[in-house]
Amino acid sequence: MKLSFLLAPLLLAAPAALAQKAPAAENLVQYARPIIGTQKMGHTYPGATVPFGMVQLSPDTDTLLYAKDGKYNPDIYRYCAGYQYDDPTIVGFSHTHFSGTGHSDLGDFLVMPTTGPLQLNPGTAQKPESGFRSRFSHQNETAEPAYYKVKLDDHNIGVELTATTRVGMHQYTFPKSDQAHIILDLMAGIYNYEDKNTWTYVRVVNDSLITGYRQTNGWARTRTLYFAMAFSKPFKQYGYRNYSKKQVYRGFWGKFDQAHNFPEMAGEQLRAYFDFNTQEGEKIKVKLALSPVSQEGAVANMQAELPGWNFEQTKAQSQALWQQELSKVTIQSPKKDDKINFYTALYHTFLGPTVYQDADGQYRGIDQNNHKAEGFTNYTTFSLWDTYRALHPLFNLVQPQRNADMVQSMLAHYSQSPEHMLPVWSHHANENWCMIGYHSVSVIADAVLKGNATFDANKALDACVATARHDSYDGVGFYRQLGFVPEDKNSSSVSKTLEYAYDDWCIAQMAQKLGRQDIHQEFSQRAQNYKNVYDARIGFMRPRLADGSFRKEFDVLSTNNQGYIEGNSWNYSLYVPQDPKALIQLMGGSKRFTEHLDSLFTMHLPDKFFAETEDITRDGIIGNYVHGNEPAHHAAYLYNWTDQPWKTQQRVRMILPKMYRPTPDGLGGNDDCGQMSAWYIFSALGFYPVAPGSTEYALGSPAIHGATMTLESGKTFRITVKNQSDKNVYVKEARLNGQKLTRPFLQHQDIVKGGELVFTMGGKP
Amino acid sequence: MKLSFLLAPLLLAAPAALAQKAPAAENLVQYARPIIGTQKMGHTYPGATVPFGMVQLSPDTDTLLYAKDGKYNPDIYRYCAGYQYDDPTIVGFSHTHFSGTGHSDLGDFLVMPTTGPLQLNPGTAQKPESGFRSRFSHQNETAEPAYYKVKLDDHNIGVELTATTRVGMHQYTFPKSDQAHIILDLMAGIYNYEDKNTWTYVRVVNDSLITGYRQTNGWARTRTLYFAMAFSKPFKQYGYRNYSKKQVYRGFWGKFDQAHNFPEMAGEQLRAYFDFNTQEGEKIKVKLALSPVSQEGAVANMQAELPGWNFEQTKAQSQALWQQELSKVTIQSPKKDDKINFYTALYHTFLGPTVYQDADGQYRGIDQNNHKAEGFTNYTTFSLWDTYRALHPLFNLVQPQRNADMVQSMLAHYSQSPEHMLPVWSHHANENWCMIGYHSVSVIADAVLKGNATFDANKALDACVATARHDSYDGVGFYRQLGFVPEDKNSSSVSKTLEYAYDDWCIAQMAQKLGRQDIHQEFSQRAQNYKNVYDARIGFMRPRLADGSFRKEFDVLSTNNQGYIEGNSWNYSLYVPQDPKALIQLMGGSKRFTEHLDSLFTMHLPDKFFAETEDITRDGIIGNYVHGNEPAHHAAYLYNWTDQPWKTQQRVRMILPKMYRPTPDGLGGNDDCGQMSAWYIFSALGFYPVAPGSTEYALGSPAIHGATMTLESGKTFRITVKNQSDKNVYVKEARLNGQKLTRPFLQHQDIVKGGELVFTMGGKP
Repeated sequence: MKLSFLLAPLLLAAPAALAQKAPAAENLVQYARPIIGTQKMGHTYPGATVPFGMVQLSPDTDTLLYAKDGKYNPDIYRYCAGYQYDDPTIVGFSHTHFSGTGHSDLGDFLVMPTTGPLQLNPGTAQKPESGFRSRFSHQNETAEPAYYKVKLDDHNIGVELTATTRVGMHQYTFPKSDQAHIILDLMAGIYNYEDKNTWTYVRVVNDSLITGYRQTNGWARTRTLYFAMAFSKPFKQYGYRNYSKKQVYRGFWGKFDQAHNFPEMAGEQLRAYFDFNTQEGEKIKVKLALSPVSQEGAVANMQAELPGWNFEQTKAQSQALWQQELSKVTIQSPKKDDKINFYTALYHTFLGPTVYQDADGQYRGIDQNNHKAEGFTNYTTFSLWDTYRALHPLFNLVQPQRNADMVQSMLAHYSQSPEHMLPVWSHHANENWCMIGYHSVSVIADAVLKGNATFDANKALDACVATARHDSYDGVGFYRQLGFVPEDKNSSSVSKTLEYAYDDWCIAQMAQKLGRQDIHQEFSQRAQNYKNVYDARIGFMRPRLADGSFRKEFDVLSTNNQGYIEGNSWNYSLYVPQDPKALIQLMGGSKRFTEHLDSLFTMHLPDKFFAETEDITRDGIIGNYVHGNEPAHHAAYLYNWTDQPWKTQQRVRMILPKMYRPTPDGLGGNDDCGQMSAWYIFSALGFYPVAPGSTEYALGSPAIHGATMTLESGKTFRITVKNQSDKNVYVKEARLNGQKLTRPFLQHQDIVKGGELVFTMGGKP
Repeated sequence: MKLSFLLAPLLLAAPAALAQKAPAAENLVQYARPIIGTQKMGHTYPGATVPFGMVQLSPDTDTLLYAKDGKYNPDIYRYCAGYQYDDPTIVGFSHTHFSGTGHSDLGDFLVMPTTGPLQLNPGTAQKPESGFRSRFSHQNETAEPAYYKVKLDDHNIGVELTATTRVGMHQYTFPKSDQAHIILDLMAGIYNYEDKNTWTYVRVVNDSLITGYRQTNGWARTRTLYFAMAFSKPFKQYGYRNYSKKQVYRGFWGKFDQAHNFPEMAGEQLRAYFDFNTQEGEKIKVKLALSPVSQEGAVANMQAELPGWNFEQTKAQSQALWQQELSKVTIQSPKKDDKINFYTALYHTFLGPTVYQDADGQYRGIDQNNHKAEGFTNYTTFSLWDTYRALHPLFNLVQPQRNADMVQSMLAHYSQSPEHMLPVWSHHANENWCMIGYHSVSVIADAVLKGNATFDANKALDACVATARHDSYDGVGFYRQLGFVPEDKNSSSVSKTLEYAYDDWCIAQMAQKLGRQDIHQEFSQRAQNYKNVYDARIGFMRPRLADGSFRKEFDVLSTNNQGYIEGNSWNYSLYVPQDPKALIQLMGGSKRFTEHLDSLFTMHLPDKFFAETEDITRDGIIGNYVHGNEPAHHAAYLYNWTDQPWKTQQRVRMILPKMYRPTPDGLGGNDDCGQMSAWYIFSALGFYPVAPGSTEYALGSPAIHGATMTLESGKTFRITVKNQSDKNVYVKEARLNGQKLTRPFLQHQDIVKGGELVFTMGGKP
């Protein structure tokens, strides 16, 4: 009786949660296709995961080495997510994968069911029978959110995978066999090299439970991941081989036959096997739980999340989680492909950052100590150079609580970081320092400015300031002293100068909102530094040297040692998102600026330059506009600040179908932990956050026929598109709650207070 | 007012503690000489430690590699404790050392202060100026319990060391220098090999605190030790070099100059340095705390135990702990050397097993999970093949609470062990499986039988039984099936059979006391198995084959592949401590047995046999009696079961001065974690525990003039020796509480209930 009384306030406090639980009119999970982006450059993975899940259980089609004979192996790049659609074989199913990265790591705990004589080497794709890998066919493959299914032809085994946040579940349907095996390969890994494993350990707890860990020295320099693996049926025998070339003291360990049925395995390079007799059609299930903290943590995670063995129920519950998340933005379109593109993109944006803590809140910190997340969920995998642009702004609309927790995770990183810095590119309790800038500050400022700072904003500002004043970091000392990063002291100097200036503007905005005037002043000043690398004589941003002069040798089309990274001067010269108006002035006014923009999209980039740009193929380039990389992601929207905003609409509608298609090769470049997909979501809805840290969105041209965004507050923001068609890409009129917009911009408050935006489209500008 | 009332029961409950705190009449610390045993074979270390301390902070005079070019380096054996008295140089001061072992590990966190140009390689003993090592002289060296002092001649630095349980404290007196360095060598280690380190990590927390860890794959296969290191003065700069040949992904780490003032160091092979300017005579202090659990644990241990910087006070407090422990047995003798021998031996017996948990009770278990010790202190370093004989029986007299905690630690090991076995030879959360037997059961039975089982004795018995039935362990399956270990199936088969039979008798005794009749019966039967390897035709124990026959090729003097380990048949044939009477019958009666015993002590062992015996030199052998190894440690006392017990008295008084001398080379063999020294203590007091697990002691001949044993109960047992002299080695009469003893035996209860034993000595048998 009292219970209902007590519950009432809780229910009132969580109307959004309630709203999400209401049955959705349409099954949205059917439209999200994890297979999209698995061919060529997308670097997505097709396997099973829940929204922001710690486990990404997915097939790996190859396990190349990062280097052969000390030389970098360029083919490794295709395997950032472990799976390439064109490959004929599957090596196994591992439990951790990045989505869409351009460098990689992980691929932990590869599990493979086999039949026949035991083979502990993976074999080759050319000759799969030489090892445990198996041929497979896309006809026998299904990839859905939280569900993956495939037939292993060589072993005649049906494989189904699903996952909860911290547990991967496998269901193997075996043929009749007295030689059925489940292999646990602790050597396998993504972006592996021969001595990447620093140590691995396995303990056989009983005849159906093992625990252990893997320690690696890779992109994450000092990484440990723990696991617990349960089998639905006791194994009849087990064993392992140690493939390490390392000198190992054996001593009195020789008194045991360690290779067979010995319950403690340890070494650098281990592959273990577990043997079964199976009946025709017999299902053996495996649950593998992860923990960043301990073996016990992994066991507890399994107990907490997935104590039973019901595969179908687990799949259904995990797909229901996806339905709930995908329902946050519902769209209307007569074309199924639009829905496939949209919900696949939304699916990709909700893959990460990923939960990185045990069920009890414990996690490994970047100081290599264990910590407990108090009052927030700890996340990892911050590909910030990519995701500050549109992914975190998207979260500020549809995942504000998670986004605030991500900021808390970044602040925890800051307080635990030996360098006393916010994350740059961090994963699994490690900073890998990838790319440039200190874009944590953009994510934090965007949350603060948009009113989603459930964290301590003043402490967060202090962390931003400390990071931005870290002189020994990547030219910041020179930048603070000279107003720019000098190319003769630090490479990619123009990219760094421009991005630091933008980040500084974010800090200034945050400081202003928090009334910290001294900081506001310092960083407003720093935010002007983009001007210091602009060479007015040529109309481009250009590297400068420490003596103040512009570097003589310079090619505006090249990215090869020209002061840029992942983009040439033509693209990067547009990178002043914090003040496009001033940039336009700097570059000679609206007309000249428009010409620059036009040429970006229409010129032909000679092959020799295109080959120089990292992480990109022709698929990701339109003219000289590189959509497959991020630096110009805002570029199409800059027309809004000229007198030809209709060109934004035209460019966006031109980019969308070229770069996002409902096919395995449908992504024009690495999805980059959801940034590419977040660009899609915003652009398809008709607006884009050109400068995160500002509360303004630039309007584009919606690609859908209508949409409803359901916010955590319970409010909804509705987008109605009249007269929509592939030809009608121009916005004739936009009305917000009935009021005609006179400028092609929208405010964050306009959305979060709820309401309706009505676009009326037309075929001409 | 109430306080005194509340305190009263506590005071009453701990009279022993009070008694110990009473000021001792005599400074006993002065007699304990850590330098004894550091020359030749003793393998003790001279450095600073507290009783049973986790930190053993001691100079290392060399750091040889375990193997060179894949071949075992026999010279490594000299460096089991890191220090050899004859060496001319010191490499540095590391924080963990075994005392007296014959194989090794540890030597963690070597710290070395230097002056002059920075040198990060250790250099060679022949040319110390080629590296950071330094010449030193024994004239400038002092080694006391919990205090070590030396002058580093090459650097003109005075070094003083002391320690608390978990913290080592260094005090360096520098000359004036603007090139003063403190080196932290994470590559150094005892029984090192090139890739023994699996990973090391250092975090510079601030300008005077660093933390980190070292992971090794050595004798302990999967070992991690954490540290926190504080400097009394901020360093002016710091850096490190990574000497690993391992392929390491660098990537964007290149944006930092990691070698200088970069606060995060990680890799397999690191040496770090910390630089200072010093004034003439300036003291810089360093505290280095250990933790088996985490860096945070190490910091907390330092805070809990040694928050300040007072070196003299720390030394005084730690030496007071030694005074307290050494006072448990006070002796009288007119000869200072007797006191030096006795208190040095007592010091050695109180070095280990060592505390292995943080101040808050957390420790790493053998399952590689962290656990919390509830209701006991967790210990590690169980050299059980050695220490079950006399060390743990000694503890049952003078350290019963610690001994019970050691048993609790062994039971925790059992419950966490992947193999579900009690420890064999375990250290630092690892089982190294060294030597043979399952002598944990002896330690447990001895504690149970002697009434010191504050643990759950029935659970302990279950653990013993499970261990003794572990068929895949070292021939146990054959032993259970055949009644002996067959030499053609498992080497050292006679040693194993004999020791298993003794251990089984221990289990039987314990089962009887606990009323577990089925177990008593099973193991009483098994305890008879020694008879199965006795060859009556030759009067010696002899290896048998699986077909039941005795092996034909056999040499009673050899230990080379003859069915024995660390002892030949002549010694091992006496190994039936559980029933000497039956053994004497088996071997042909008292006369023949006495002849065997006599010949053991008097025959000449040809050099070729002596060279075969492991861990031994001529120094440790008397005739064919090998005192430097353990299998015959009880042998001299076996005369008590013959009609010539006076020969026990004679042999013991002959062994004592030969094997224990007050000089650096004063130990006749490896001290083996205190077993050799425990033999001394018992024998010098006049009795010995021939069969731990029985409550009976065999009387020998006291070597001192009197002694008082103060028990934890507060009771005292007094030994008075009348007419004592070097010549008067024979016991004319022994009276217990005035009652003349008719048999040369003493009961445990006779001691623990308190009382007096009066020996009257004479010059003839």
